[in-house]
Amino acid sequence: MVPHLVTALTGPINELEQRILESMPAIERWFRLEWMEHTPPFYCSVDIRNAGFKLAPVDTNLFPGGWNNLTPEMLPLAVQAAMAAIEKICPEAKNLLVIPENHTRNTFYLSNLAQLQRIFHMAGLNVRLGSISPEITESTRIELPGGEVITLDPVVRTKHRLGLKDFDPCTILLNNDLSAGAPGILEDLHEQYLLPPLHAGWSVRRKTNHFQSYEEVAKRFGKMLGIDPWLINPMFSHCGEVDFASGEGGECVMDKTDALLSKIRKKYKDYGIHEKPFVVVKANNGTYGMGIMTVRDAKELEQLNRKTRNKMSVVKDGQQVHEVIIQEGVLTEERIHAAVAEPVVYMMDRYVVGGFYRIHAERGVDENLNAPGASFVPLAFENTSRLPQPGEKPGASAPNRFYMYGVIGRLALLAASYELEATDPDAENYD
Amino acid sequence: MVPHLVTALTGPINELEQRILESMPAIERWFRLEWMEHTPPFYCSVDIRNAGFKLAPVDTNLFPGGWNNLTPEMLPLAVQAAMAAIEKICPEAKNLLVIPENHTRNTFYLSNLAQLQRIFHMAGLNVRLGSISPEITESTRIELPGGEVITLDPVVRTKHRLGLKDFDPCTILLNNDLSAGAPGILEDLHEQYLLPPLHAGWSVRRKTNHFQSYEEVAKRFGKMLGIDPWLINPMFSHCGEVDFASGEGGECVMDKTDALLSKIRKKYKDYGIHEKPFVVVKANNGTYGMGIMTVRDAKELEQLNRKTRNKMSVVKDGQQVHEVIIQEGVLTEERIHAAVAEPVVYMMDRYVVGGFYRIHAERGVDENLNAPGASFVPLAFENTSRLPQPGEKPGASAPNRFYMYGVIGRLALLAASYELEATDPDAENYD
Repeated sequence: MVPHLVTALTGPINELEQRILESMPAIERWFRLEWMEHTPPFYCSVDIRNAGFKLAPVDTNLFPGGWNNLTPEMLPLAVQAAMAAIEKICPEAKNLLVIPENHTRNTFYLSNLAQLQRIFHMAGLNVRLGSISPEITESTRIELPGGEVITLDPVVRTKHRLGLKDFDPCTILLNNDLSAGAPGILEDLHEQYLLPPLHAGWSVRRKTNHFQSYEEVAKRFGKMLGIDPWLINPMFSHCGEVDFASGEGGECVMDKTDALLSKIRKKYKDYGIHEKPFVVVKANNGTYGMGIMTVRDAKELEQLNRKTRNKMSVVKDGQQVHEVIIQEGVLTEERIHAAVAEPVVYMMDRYVVGGFYRIHAERGVDENLNAPGASFVPLAFENTSRLPQPGEKPGASAPNRFYMYGVIGRLALLAASYELEATDPDAENYD
Repeated sequence: MVPHLVTALTGPINELEQRILESMPAIERWFRLEWMEHTPPFYCSVDIRNAGFKLAPVDTNLFPGGWNNLTPEMLPLAVQAAMAAIEKICPEAKNLLVIPENHTRNTFYLSNLAQLQRIFHMAGLNVRLGSISPEITESTRIELPGGEVITLDPVVRTKHRLGLKDFDPCTILLNNDLSAGAPGILEDLHEQYLLPPLHAGWSVRRKTNHFQSYEEVAKRFGKMLGIDPWLINPMFSHCGEVDFASGEGGECVMDKTDALLSKIRKKYKDYGIHEKPFVVVKANNGTYGMGIMTVRDAKELEQLNRKTRNKMSVVKDGQQVHEVIIQEGVLTEERIHAAVAEPVVYMMDRYVVGGFYRIHAERGVDENLNAPGASFVPLAFENTSRLPQPGEKPGASAPNRFYMYGVIGRLALLAASYELEATDPDAENYD
């Protein structure tokens, strides 16, 4: 179960949505049993695309920013989930150190930090922000547009612990995706909880590992629900040695794009879908919506212009792109004020705690919306008391699309859990 | 942390409230550590009185009705907490049987059942209502004023299990306070989870045990916070052999009332409080607001009229009153539309999930409001984003009175946990 939020898409619900709504108790129990075997990531946000006939996660963020886009009404859910998470991981915890991204001047991002600080304070922790940026050499007080104030302090590393000059945390929460690699200052902190683990950082993480795990999760979930897992799973393939600048590996990308477009075409035919298939080529370690392009025909890849080549070569923090994932594109049917929209689902521990829409007025239904010009529209809580009722006729209950998004978000969360287990460098110790 | 709800009392916050707001992380951590040692009751509602200078729980209900008074906005919190509770107690659970009160024609109570069914359905359980009332001999479909439908089925007992004809639950949730005693049909169900345990029922439970435990909790909490526990703890005493009809034990009640009034008078003097002290005499096993009277002078007890004697002799389900608790009266300063109001806090597992006001236009500030003529006013979620902020000057943050009520509610919840441990008839098995 997830908060009842009003989504923009209010048309009649389709078969998949109906199946998911009807199966609520079975789905929730399935998640309960999964979480007995697997540990959810501490927090997570998932971008979802709903094509009507199909819906799928397209990005799973293990260092979510944007908490400031959750409405005040959603905060109690986030706090309650944070309490549950802390209770399980470190109930004795008193002090929490949050490590933010190094680019510290974006006020939206700073508001996100203020929101995280607020959530964990209310969950019962003393929260401070410790920067690992070389630019922060002294305590730095920053006033935000709304009048809130946050303070960034430089972290202090001793032999076994990380903290601030006057603050010794038992738990360290990364809100920095470590695209540039895990700095030495974060290594060998065996006395403190470091969440998420270092191998969740984008210098190590690969989208293909995540979507491999997601495919496994989608297959098991599809079997339980009696649906074709393709309805919730974007197909993908992978090229391992690519250099867009020099053109190296271009053939691999073209061949795989062509093959994937054929597979999608076949699926569309099976389901009688009259849309044009497309794929999305993404840097396998990319984040922030960088290093992404939409391809409708493999021939487009022959004639990439310099700008596109540059865009695809380098992602956040100057990381070079050497690998790409070629992923089935999923249209988004959601619209807000005529702008293309995609829901983003926020989770803490195993709980969906809120969400909002990312919208982009200048992008199409088959394009990446995580780009300059995007804005965020909060989801409102549904005010009707006509929530889905057990035993009612299908279609008689108010459709609750956000429930479905919360289910897909949690499938991606579960996939991230599988992924982190499979890629844990310390896992061999326990075998 | 609790949901941010708007309370009616909007005056300046006093010292106690300020202390509680400032100490939020320490308080939350204190609860976390307590819950490591003690198991919270499955669900609970607590009536609270706020006199401004003092606030205290006056009734702790382990079989809460009134869930229908929670607003739709609060439901996600209740569902999330229910998920956490189920996950801990019985993660494999599929089917939940709710056992309602036997008086089945009150539509407010039936709406409460529909709400409970909804909450647990969304938390991932198949939920059915199984009546132990002799009046329910076949499946009974009841349409509620809002159009909702609930179905009461007679329970079926086999040698080791309780269920319905076509429904075998792994967990049984009592929403019946067992005032008339636990029926044999609920005994020896060792294969199923029965929540709350039978000894939480009002045929066994005693208010004095609860307030004994609460006093212990209040002392420990007061020590942690550095406050006089009296500020949150109502003093009480006890008479064990009372018969209001015959007048037996009247002297004990008068003497103890007199002594308690003196103690309150002294406390009021110490704190410079210019209010008239009063005590509340209550049946030690009473519920539903039955068997309660306000006494401002022990002499009033000499001249009880027949009506009052009758009222104090018999409580719910015809149970005779043989013991009373004489409890320090706590004024309520809350008002809604000029009617005297008291907040009721709802909890599931260790989480505050919502609340509302009980108001009564014909009662005074020193009277029991749980009486015919009472009505319920939902609390709204606070829409401001100015929630209490760490590091801000005292008084600079928006006061959040409901946080304090949630703290007191949870202290009573913790006391109930202590109480159920102390009164567990099976406890000796583990010693």
